[in-house]
Order: sequence, then C-alpha cells, then structure tokens
Amino acid sequence: MDVYVSGVGMTKFGKTKDSLEKMMGEAAALALKQAQLDRVDAIYIGVMNVEEFVGDSNFAALLADSIGMAGIPSTRVETASSTGAGAFETAFYAVASGHLKNVLILAGEKMTHLSTAKTTRILSEVIDRSERRYGATMPALAAMIAQKYGRDYQLPNSKLETILSLVAIKNHFNGALNPRAQFRKTITREDYLKSQMVSYPLRLYDCAPITDGAAALILTSQPTAVKVSGIGHATDTLAVRHRASLTSFNSTKEAALKAYTMAQLNPSDIRFAEVHDAFTPFEIIGTEDLGFFPPGEGWKALEEGATQLRGRFPVNPSGGLKSRGHPVGASGLAQIVEIASQMRGEAGERRQLEQTEVGLAQSIGGLGNNNLVTILEKSDRNRVAKPGWRPDYQPELIVSQKDSPSPPAGGIGVLETFTTLYATPEGFRSPLTFGFVKTESGERLLACNPDYHSPKKLKIGNKVSLTHREGLYVFEKLPLLSRLKRRLKGLRSL
Amino acid sequence: MDVYVSGVGMTKFGKTKDSLEKMMGEAAALALKQAQLDRVDAIYIGVMNVEEFVGDSNFAALLADSIGMAGIPSTRVETASSTGAGAFETAFYAVASGHLKNVLILAGEKMTHLSTAKTTRILSEVIDRSERRYGATMPALAAMIAQKYGRDYQLPNSKLETILSLVAIKNHFNGALNPRAQFRKTITREDYLKSQMVSYPLRLYDCAPITDGAAALILTSQPTAVKVSGIGHATDTLAVRHRASLTSFNSTKEAALKAYTMAQLNPSDIRFAEVHDAFTPFEIIGTEDLGFFPPGEGWKALEEGATQLRGRFPVNPSGGLKSRGHPVGASGLAQIVEIASQMRGEAGERRQLEQTEVGLAQSIGGLGNNNLVTILEKSDRNRVAKPGWRPDYQPELIVSQKDSPSPPAGGIGVLETFTTLYATPEGFRSPLTFGFVKTESGERLLACNPDYHSPKKLKIGNKVSLTHREGLYVFEKLPLLSRLKRRLKGLRSL
Repeated sequence: MDVYVSGVGMTKFGKTKDSLEKMMGEAAALALKQAQLDRVDAIYIGVMNVEEFVGDSNFAALLADSIGMAGIPSTRVETASSTGAGAFETAFYAVASGHLKNVLILAGEKMTHLSTAKTTRILSEVIDRSERRYGATMPALAAMIAQKYGRDYQLPNSKLETILSLVAIKNHFNGALNPRAQFRKTITREDYLKSQMVSYPLRLYDCAPITDGAAALILTSQPTAVKVSGIGHATDTLAVRHRASLTSFNSTKEAALKAYTMAQLNPSDIRFAEVHDAFTPFEIIGTEDLGFFPPGEGWKALEEGATQLRGRFPVNPSGGLKSRGHPVGASGLAQIVEIASQMRGEAGERRQLEQTEVGLAQSIGGLGNNNLVTILEKSDRNRVAKPGWRPDYQPELIVSQKDSPSPPAGGIGVLETFTTLYATPEGFRSPLTFGFVKTESGERLLACNPDYHSPKKLKIGNKVSLTHREGLYVFEKLPLLSRLKRRLKGLRSL
Repeated sequence: MDVYVSGVGMTKFGKTKDSLEKMMGEAAALALKQAQLDRVDAIYIGVMNVEEFVGDSNFAALLADSIGMAGIPSTRVETASSTGAGAFETAFYAVASGHLKNVLILAGEKMTHLSTAKTTRILSEVIDRSERRYGATMPALAAMIAQKYGRDYQLPNSKLETILSLVAIKNHFNGALNPRAQFRKTITREDYLKSQMVSYPLRLYDCAPITDGAAALILTSQPTAVKVSGIGHATDTLAVRHRASLTSFNSTKEAALKAYTMAQLNPSDIRFAEVHDAFTPFEIIGTEDLGFFPPGEGWKALEEGATQLRGRFPVNPSGGLKSRGHPVGASGLAQIVEIASQMRGEAGERRQLEQTEVGLAQSIGGLGNNNLVTILEKSDRNRVAKPGWRPDYQPELIVSQKDSPSPPAGGIGVLETFTTLYATPEGFRSPLTFGFVKTESGERLLACNPDYHSPKKLKIGNKVSLTHREGLYVFEKLPLLSRLKRRLKGLRSL
C-alpha cells in the first residue's frame, strides 16, 4: 500500500525552558492541524535517550497521555542519532501494511539543561565500549575521519580547513533564513577560524550544537501531494576501527542503494537533499556516499557552490544539523519535515526551492552505524519506472568484525589518522591525543599518547611504536635513529 | 500480507554473568537455526532501559554487530515492560507491509548485576513523576490495586491472601516444569505466607523477580504452521490516579478488542494464554479484562483450578513472569515464544498442552499503560470467520486527564485504597504508607502518611483529612470524635 505525508510540524530548535513533552506536543499539534486530524491510529515516538537526558522511562505512554491521546497505541523507536528517521521508517511499514491508516511520528530531545561535559558523556555512549575507554567522543572520531579524507584526496591542511569552513558557512547562511533554526546568523571564514578547536582539525563551527527541539509528521494511506517513494536502512560495525574504509560510510551506501531500488530512482533524479552534517566532513562524505558526486569529489562540488541554496543541487536548505540544531532524537525527522515542506511549497519565500519533485534525507545513527535514507516524491510527478540505482562500485559486504582474540602486546605500526581532543567527556582530562594505528599484521587499533598535548608533532603516515599499558594502547613516534635502523634492516633482508 | 512464525529461541532466564549481548546472541542463534536462516532482512531489538541498566546507547547497532549481522537494518523498540511484545508488533507490520520477508525480533534485559534498590529506582521511572515523588513503586501501586480488587468483590483480607497465593503457587508449579524458568521449584501456601512483605498485601511471592534473559522470534511472509492472527495495542493515562477504574486495565481491554477484531475471534476461541503476572493480582485482572472470565470472577476460576496447567483454560503454562522470570525488555516476547512453542508441540512432555489451536499473550507496559495483546493461531486450523468479539461492556473511552489546575490545599476525603511499602526505592526510607484519597470534589489524589509504619490501622473507606506539605499530600485518619461531629453536622443539615 502506498504511503503519503499529510502533515508536518516542528518547534523552533534551540535552547528552551519548555519540557520535552511540551515541545513534542507543540510539534504534534501543528502536524495534526495540517493533516486536519484530531485522532490517529498509532503514535511512533522517536527519542534517543530520555532515560539519561530527562530521567523518564515508559516515555511512549507518557507522551500519548501528555498530548491528550491516552489510549492510542504508542511505541518508542530508537536508532541513536538517526532516531527520527528510524521512527519514520517504522511508521511507514505500519501504514504500508494496511493495518493502520493515519499514524503520527513524533521525535524530539531535550539536551540543553545538562552541562556540556555530561551531555558529551551521554552522547559518547553510542560509541564502541573499548573506543570509549580512550575518551573518544563523536567529534574526536569525526575529526580523525576528516583528517583521513584530507590525506586520501591530497588536500593540504589549509585546504581541508577551507573546505570544512565552506560547509559551516553555507549551512549557517541557510539557517539564517530558517525561522525554526537554532542559529539564525551567517558566519564568515574569520568567524570560523576564530572558533574554538574541539578536536583537531574540527572547530566548534564544524560541530552541530546541543539543542532542544521536536518534529512531527503524519503518514497516511490516503493519497496526498507528497508520497514516500523509498526507504533504506543499514547498520555497520559499532567500532570505527573495524571498518574497511574511514572516508565513506558503508551504512549510508547500503541504505541509499535500498532506497533508490525501492523508489526505482537514481541519484540523478534527486533534486535536493538534507544530509546529516553533525560534523562538517560528514556532509561532504554523505554527498559522495549517496551518489550525488563521485568519491573524493564532494569537496569540489561544495567549493564550486553546487550545494548552495541557489546552486544546482541544494544540500541542507534548512541549515542542516549544523545551523538548524541537533536534538539527537528529532534531527532525522526534522530533515524529512524540511523535504516535505519544500515539496508542499511551504519553506518560506527566502528558502523555497524551485525544483522539488524528488527530495532525499540521509540520517546517521551513532558514528555511521545506523543510517537511514528516505526519498519523498511529489505524487503528481510524471515518472518513468527505472530499474533503480546501479552504483559504479560494488557495495562492500559489511562484516561484523571482532578484535583478534589475542590482542598484540605491542609492536610497530603506522599512524593512519589521529586527533587531539580538547572537549573531553566527563571524567577525562583535556587534551587527549589518540589515533588509529595500523599494525604490521594489518590490524587497526585505537591508541593514545598522554604526552602529546597538541597535534603538531604528528603526521598521518608516521611510524609509531605501540605498547599496551593499563588496558590501553599507547603509541609513540619512532625516533629518527630507530626509523633509520629499521630501514637499514629492511635493506639488509633483501 | 499474512505473517507467520518460523523460529523461536530463548535463554534460560535467571541470574547470569553473561553480558546482555551474549544472551541475546544465544537466543537469536536458536531462533535462526529453527527457521533455517543465516540472514534476515531486518532486526527489531526490544530492550527497556539499556541506558541505565548497562550504560549503553545505540544498542540496535551494537547488537547487530555483536551477533555477526553488522549491515542488517536494526531498530530498537520500547514500550516499557511490554517492550518484547511492542517489538513483535512493530516487526509484524514490517513483514505485513510486504517490504521485508524475514525479520528477527530479539528482546532482552540485563538486571541482576545492580542492587535491588537501584533496580527498583530504575523500574520506578516508568511511573508518573508526581506519583514517583511519593516513593511509589510498581509493587506499591499493584498492592493498592490488589486491595481495591478485594474490597470491590467482597473478599476479606484472608481470602484475598489465599487467592493471591494461588496464582503464585500455580505459576511456580508450571515454572518448575520449565527448563528455561528462573525458579524451578514448587512453593506451598506456607512458603508463600513466610515470604517477606514487599508492599502490603503483596509479598515477595506476589512479585516477579529481577531477571537476566533474552528471547528471539522470527517472523516471515512464508507460510509456516503458526500464523499471527491478531494484534492489539493501547495506552492509558500515565498516572494511575487518572483512571476511571482501579481494578481493571482499560489498555488491556482496548488492546484485546483490537486483537480479537483483527483475528475475527472471540475470547471463547482462545485455548490457553500467557497473561502478564508481574504481580499476582494482575493475572486475575488480566483474565477478566481479556474476556476469559466476567469481571470479579477471575479469582473464582483460579480457585476452581480452571487456569492450572491441566485445567480447562491454562494460564501461564510457562510459569509466567512470576516463575519464569521477568527481564523487563524480554518478557513480552518470551510469552509469545511460549505460545508458539506450545503450538509447535515443543513445550516438552511435562508442560505440553493438548489444545493449542489458538493462543493469546497479554503484556503490560508500565503500570498498565502500554499494553499489547497478541493472538497466534495454527495455520491449518479449520475456522469460521467471526465478526470479532463483542464484549458485554462498552469499552470506555480512555481520556487523558490532568490534575485540576489549582490542586486543593487540603480538605476531607475517603481512602479508596492504600499500601505500606517496605521495599522502597533508592533514596527513600522504609516503610512508606500511602494511598489514593477521593476528595469531596471527586478528585483522586495520592497521599502519604509518614507516621503510619504499618497498614494495620487503616481500612479502605476510612474518612481522612488531607493537608499539603512540601509538595506532597499527607492524609490522616479523622479521629472518632471528629467523625461523629461530621456525621452530626450532616444530620443537622437534613
């Protein structure tokens, strides 16, 4: 059964004294009003971590009651930071089954009332436990991915900095035009460069903020102007060190492939997109993983202005997570609300796009391991059925990987990427320097060095020694002499 | 599209050193083996509160990876203590939509590693915030419901005690025959009477234990021997004080009505059931709410032996939550696993029922505010389509209720029901006495009395005075003289 969007709503994102249920009630009321409904058959609630952010459990029932819908079936759905999109997918199947006619999806999070260190600690719980033990945070892992991207595509540090700043500048420009965005101010390259370093090379302006907010959407089996055309969903290994690639998310590629196949569409059919830019490098990588630009060329499209609001392929017309804000449970749904609003011609004069026949939203859960891609299409669009996307790469089979049963006690390796993290989570001192080291046996390990207080002495490709101390790997740059000796040894063995 | 069960599995429930993901992996492997599958199209993970019980977030991705299925879409679903049934419902719609063919539902919880006080505190977070402020716990609210049931159906205290003990004795008898149950011992009435008082009149043997465990089930669009026949789901007000009735759960009635309607079946078609007996009174009330016995007669059927393993209508052949154990996220699915196993003739010689054509599982989320009813049916059953259940009562419209905007500062009221709670949550002294007081204006309030250290001086129907101190209502029995005065005043006003 086909599934349509009949109403959307969202609160202003930002910092508010309103309770989570009040915000969610406000978003729900807007969506219900637009859909001209006062009851629905079921409610799907997207919240990532109400247990720790607000201290409630049984939140689906709490919310149904607080919005005046006690009685109505209510289910909480969670896929980490893609939760809003996960709730949308779940509700989509419920309506597509024919068992339910009108379903309310309601996603939100309340975050700003806690300290940044506490919020950082709660958000870090999405990370693999052993990577978390090093004090790794989401920005730290994203920073290592950014550095690797720069290295792989030969972008000098200053160029990488420029590219990342362009994402922030573009999304702040869009957000400034969006009345519901958290930040309604444009920023310059100077502002960007002045902003505090969070985890080298990522600055405050590379990271989505901590935000309160809620979004709502109604799905229905009754035809409306906007149809759900394709949905794809895929996970990946929890640990980043277990991935084949550090500069692309297989879970996005796999989810995209499924969504394009269901929709019988290609990337070239998409007119605009909301791409998960919790960190600026993720937007660039996202536009490549989704097939909009070839691998390693997302930054070029950005630099050429293609992804600007009035560019040939607008990305994050809403301002993205970066500028609209990122209430973790809500963002995935807020993206879809933006796509639907654009299609309904309701984005407001200053942000309204012209070409909105097909739009796509991509949402990342955790550090790229629970991702969803949603494609909406105008119902009256003239369309030729296509066999779906045939990407020019073989999608890699994602394989659950474990660390080797007898982890190496030490040895020699190569620094694949690294960061110095300044904004450490609750319970860790600042700064922390860590990186991924590839050992001679080919295993990738996370390792730290408590003595490096800045990233300046390190380069990707450095040869390092590894030791295992108190359950953590510690790496150290091999001194020049030792490196020469090793090279000599290598020559001798020829 | 019709949906079938192709495999089930569960761990032994109890106290274990195994991690949550290890238990869930074990259950998944059993279900996959039975279904002869090594991949599925999606995973639905039911966990109630991994955030606080084990300190993980992003658990859907974690689990997909840890069971060797990184890549596969994985979604966490939660409806409080009915979570396992909520995940089943969600997966049912996904398969019924035709978009997914084989789906793994995997539900579990890890609880025994924390202190009882801490676990009690975490579990109490499902309760309405203002009721929680009194120190109200699940057993305390269940105890008040039990007392009210006894009063409404004229059961003297000793009779109520006998009735409740019969639930515990029956379910322990069944659990003793179930190799996967937490408690594999029968209990006597003497054991029951010797067991510690948790919240008057509920003893330890009236309450489901704290348990580790996991259950798994595979749904498929390929016909098998067991079909999903009906599913119903309903919420209720979060606060117990906002309900019309204290001795019946509207959310069960409403969910049952939907499930019977979808299945085109009546209660009389059901041959056996798993009924959520987190507390012994809930099993009795459940059998009434589900239409198996008329209101107020569930206890009679129990006393007559109708619900015993070899009775005419077996209830909780698995041992129920009481004896099989209650890992909060898993129980709702474990019930359905039991129903399917009975239908597949795999319950084991000593527990296998003869009449298993149609079975029903009822699961309670929170204090009766997120309930699900699931009906399974043998696919080869000869059946006449029926219009569905027409209950002999008008299902009440559940209405979200708020406290009056200007709560009374005090006054006079009647004690509707009460309890003395001995096993208090983290941060509260023991014992605590509280009860529901109906004010003269008809509002029901939760109120406590810090000076009553036992339930002995109180009776349902007592006239009480109410005062408001430090944000809590405090009730006190009106002294005899004052009661006489009031009566006199009443007479005078005639």
